Amino acid sequence: MKIVILAGGSGTRLFPLSREKYPKQFIKLINHSSFFQETVKRFTSKFSLDDFIFSTKKYYTFMIKEQLEELKFKTDNVHFVLEPIGRNTAPAIALCAKYALDKMGVEEEEVLFVTPSDHFISPRDAMLRYFPLTEKLASQGYIVTFGIKPSHPETGYGYIKVGEQLEEGSFKVEKFTEKPDFKRAVEYVSSGEYFWNSGMFAFTIKTLKEEFQKYQPEIYSLIFENSYEEAVERFEELPDISIDYAIMENTDRAAVIPCDVVWSDIGSWDAVYEVFPKDEDCNVKKGNVITYDTKNSMIIEKGKRLIVTIGVEDLTVIGTRDVTLILKRGESQRVKEVVKLLKKDIERKHYVDRHVTEYRPWGSFTDLEVGDRYRIKLITVKPGEQLSLQMHYHRSEHWIVVKGTAKVTIEDKTFYVHENESVFVPKTTVHRLENPGKVPLVLIEVQVGEYIEEDDIVRFEDKYGRV
Amino acid sequence: MKIVILAGGSGTRLFPLSREKYPKQFIKLINHSSFFQETVKRFTSKFSLDDFIFSTKKYYTFMIKEQLEELKFKTDNVHFVLEPIGRNTAPAIALCAKYALDKMGVEEEEVLFVTPSDHFISPRDAMLRYFPLTEKLASQGYIVTFGIKPSHPETGYGYIKVGEQLEEGSFKVEKFTEKPDFKRAVEYVSSGEYFWNSGMFAFTIKTLKEEFQKYQPEIYSLIFENSYEEAVERFEELPDISIDYAIMENTDRAAVIPCDVVWSDIGSWDAVYEVFPKDEDCNVKKGNVITYDTKNSMIIEKGKRLIVTIGVEDLTVIGTRDVTLILKRGESQRVKEVVKLLKKDIERKHYVDRHVTEYRPWGSFTDLEVGDRYRIKLITVKPGEQLSLQMHYHRSEHWIVVKGTAKVTIEDKTFYVHENESVFVPKTTVHRLENPGKVPLVLIEVQVGEYIEEDDIVRFEDKYGRV
Repeated sequence: MKIVILAGGSGTRLFPLSREKYPKQFIKLINHSSFFQETVKRFTSKFSLDDFIFSTKKYYTFMIKEQLEELKFKTDNVHFVLEPIGRNTAPAIALCAKYALDKMGVEEEEVLFVTPSDHFISPRDAMLRYFPLTEKLASQGYIVTFGIKPSHPETGYGYIKVGEQLEEGSFKVEKFTEKPDFKRAVEYVSSGEYFWNSGMFAFTIKTLKEEFQKYQPEIYSLIFENSYEEAVERFEELPDISIDYAIMENTDRAAVIPCDVVWSDIGSWDAVYEVFPKDEDCNVKKGNVITYDTKNSMIIEKGKRLIVTIGVEDLTVIGTRDVTLILKRGESQRVKEVVKLLKKDIERKHYVDRHVTEYRPWGSFTDLEVGDRYRIKLITVKPGEQLSLQMHYHRSEHWIVVKGTAKVTIEDKTFYVHENESVFVPKTTVHRLENPGKVPLVLIEVQVGEYIEEDDIVRFEDKYGRV
Repeated sequence: MKIVILAGGSGTRLFPLSREKYPKQFIKLINHSSFFQETVKRFTSKFSLDDFIFSTKKYYTFMIKEQLEELKFKTDNVHFVLEPIGRNTAPAIALCAKYALDKMGVEEEEVLFVTPSDHFISPRDAMLRYFPLTEKLASQGYIVTFGIKPSHPETGYGYIKVGEQLEEGSFKVEKFTEKPDFKRAVEYVSSGEYFWNSGMFAFTIKTLKEEFQKYQPEIYSLIFENSYEEAVERFEELPDISIDYAIMENTDRAAVIPCDVVWSDIGSWDAVYEVFPKDEDCNVKKGNVITYDTKNSMIIEKGKRLIVTIGVEDLTVIGTRDVTLILKRGESQRVKEVVKLLKKDIERKHYVDRHVTEYRPWGSFTDLEVGDRYRIKLITVKPGEQLSLQMHYHRSEHWIVVKGTAKVTIEDKTFYVHENESVFVPKTTVHRLENPGKVPLVLIEVQVGEYIEEDDIVRFEDKYGRV
C-alpha cells in the first residue's frame, strides 16, 4: 500500500496562524507538531517514507522537507507529485496514481490510501486498525471511504449514508450527501444510518483508472494515456474538480468503513477548541498564557508575548509575532470575512500573505525589527544551501554569524565567516551567502540604508531558478 | 507662582503599560504624550520651565529629562527635588518649599501650586483660569484645594464638603472625607455640597510652614530648621505621611475652588475608558487595531502587532511589546491582584518590573530578540553621554551604528565608528561606548556567547556612580 498525502491546500480559516504562504497543514498546534507532521506520523509505525507520495505545490516542498527533517527523515528522495497549477483533488489524485505506476514501478493492483494532511484524528494512529479490512475491500474493487460516527448535527460536513453490509465492519455506500441544513443534519444523526465523510479514500490504481475512464474520460486520457511528464505539462488543461464530484458521487463501487476515532477537519477556530483537551475551567491554553477567572475560552500564543486574561469567557485569542486575534467563541466562521477585508487593505494585506518568518528553498528568515533606515533579520541557511548571487542598490548589510559557518562571496573574493565573526557587505557589491557545512547556519543580518524593502534586490544567479 | 510637579509615584494599576520602573505618569496614551508631559504643558503657556520644581526619585530623573526634551525644553538646569527615599507627599512637599526658599531664592510670600503628574484634565490648560483667584486666596493665607463637580457617585475618590463662601467662586472647606461607601457617595453627589478632591493644592510657603509647624512639628523642624542638604540627608527619619493626613484634615485654613473641568485620577483601565473619546460603537482604539462587530471596548496596542477583534463587547485589551492583557470592562480593579500574583512568579516577575525597553541615565536599550547563544539589542545613547567602562566574561558584542557617531574604547585604543560601520568587542576586553556628538547615537548590539544575561558585567568606571 502507498500513502498519498494531500498537502497542496491553501487557506486562511485559521488566521492568524495560517497565512496564504503558510497554510493550515503546516501550523503547529499539537505539542509543537503540525497537522501535516501528525498525518505523516500516523502511518510511520507501519510504512517507510518511501511508501509516501506527497501531492503538493512547488512552493510548499521546502516546508514539507523541513517538517519531515524535524521528524528525522532524510528528504533526498521524497516522492513529490507537484501540481503545476491547482486543479483540486480529482486531477491531483489521478496524477499521483500515474506517478506510482511510472516512477515507483508499482502494479495496478497496488492500493493507494489517500488522506488530507490538515485534519485531526485521535488516537493518532487509530486508522491503521482499519487497514487490513481496507486492503481486502480495495482488492475486491471497492473505493473505500472512512465514515465517522457523528457526535453532533454538524452542518459543515458531508455525510455518507450506509447501504448493505459487506465484510464485517463495512458497508456499501448508499449515497453521499452534501453539507445538509441543520434540520436535515439532525435527522441524519438520529437515524444512525449516516456517517461524516472524513475525506480519506483507498482504492487500487486499477479501480481508480476504471472509474476515471468511466466518469472523467478527459482526465483519464490526459493522465493515463500520456507519459507522466506530458501529464504534468498539460495539467492545466484539466478541469478544477474534486474527487467527490468527479468520482464518488457517480460510482456504484463505494464502500464505507465506520471508524471509531475522534475526527475533525479543523475548519475553524471553534473546531480547534472542540477537539483540544481543556482544563477545569474548560479553557484551552497554549504558550505563555495566564488566565484568571476565565472560562470556556481558548488562548493560544505562538509569538513571544505573555497573554493575561481576567474575567472573560467564551473567547478565542490567537497570538502570533505580528497579530493578535480576539474573537467571540462560536463566531469563528467570520474569520474568513475579516481576512477578505484585510486583503483589500493595502497597508495590511501582507498580514494575510505571510508570517514575519518567511520560508525559502535555502532556509528561512524572520523580520525581527524595522526602524528608520535599518532592518534586522534572523537568517537560517540549511546545510548545503545557498542564497542567490545578488546585489542591492540602497542597503549595506552586516552579517553576524551566531551558529555554524558561512561561506561568503563578495565581488571576486570568497572566504569563510565563523561563529561570532561578522562581515560587511557594502551596497552595490555583488555577494552570495552559503552554508557549506553540516549544521544549520544562523546569522543576524542588519541592513542599513535609505531604502530597506525586499524588492531592492538584483539576482545574478540562483540555484532555485529565481533569476 | 511656582509649579510643583509630583512625579515620584510608582504603581502598576495600568499594567502592562505601567511597570514598576515605568510608572503611570510616564506612559503615553494621549496623542503620543504622557500624563507627565500633559501636566507640564498645562502650565507652559504661562510659566517657564524655570518656574517648575519636579519632586521625584533619582531613578526617574532621566525619564523626566527625556520627556521634557521631547517637549523641546533644555534640561540642563531643571529644578529637581529628589526624595532619597519615598516618604509620601507631606515630607516631599515640605522639601520642595525648602528648595524654593534656599535654592531658588523665592520669598515666603511666593505661592506654590502643587499638582500630581498622573491625572487627566480636560481641557488641558483649564486650570489656568483659576490662577488669579488661587493667588488671591493663597495670599490671604488659605491652603487652596480644587474641587471637581462629581459626575457619578464614585467610591474611589475623596470628597470635599464646601462651607461658607469666600471670594466669588470659592468656599471655605467644611471638611475632607475619605473614600465613601456607595450609599454615602450617592448622598454626597445628590446634596450638591460635595466635590471630588482633585489632589492639587496651592498655598504660600509662609502658610505651609505655619501649618507644618502647628500640625507636623517633626517634619517642620527637620526640614525648615536645617539646611536643604541636611534635610535631604536626614529625610529618611521623617514619617511616611500624605499631605492630606498631615495637614489638610487638621487645618482650618483650607479653601476650595470648584473647577469646571473633566478630571480623572486614571486609577484603572476603566477610568481610562471613561475619559477617552469613543467611536460610534463606543470603542476606544489606539494603535494598529481593527475591530469588527465590537462594542463598548477599549483596544490599545502600543507594541508592533496588529490586533483584530471580532464579535466582542465590554472588553479591555492592552498590548505592549511583551504582554497582551485582555480584561472584562468593569473589572480593572483586579489588575492589581494579578500584578501581585505575577510578582510571585519567578519566571514572570520581570514583566511587572520593566518593559522590554529599559531607561538608563545615558539613554535606553530595547531587547529585540533573545535566542540560543545570542541576544539583540537596540541601543540609544544621548548626545554627550557614555556607558560605563566595562567588561563581560561570557559574551562578545558586535555593534553596528545605524545613526550618529560612536566613540568606542577597547582596551587602550579609542576610535570613532560612523553610521553603517561596525565594531567587534571580544569577551573579556575592557570597553566603553560614548556618544560624543550632537544627535542621538543609535546602534544595534548583537551579543554572542554562552551566557547572555544582564548580570555578566564588570564595571570599572561610571559617570553615574554605578561602579
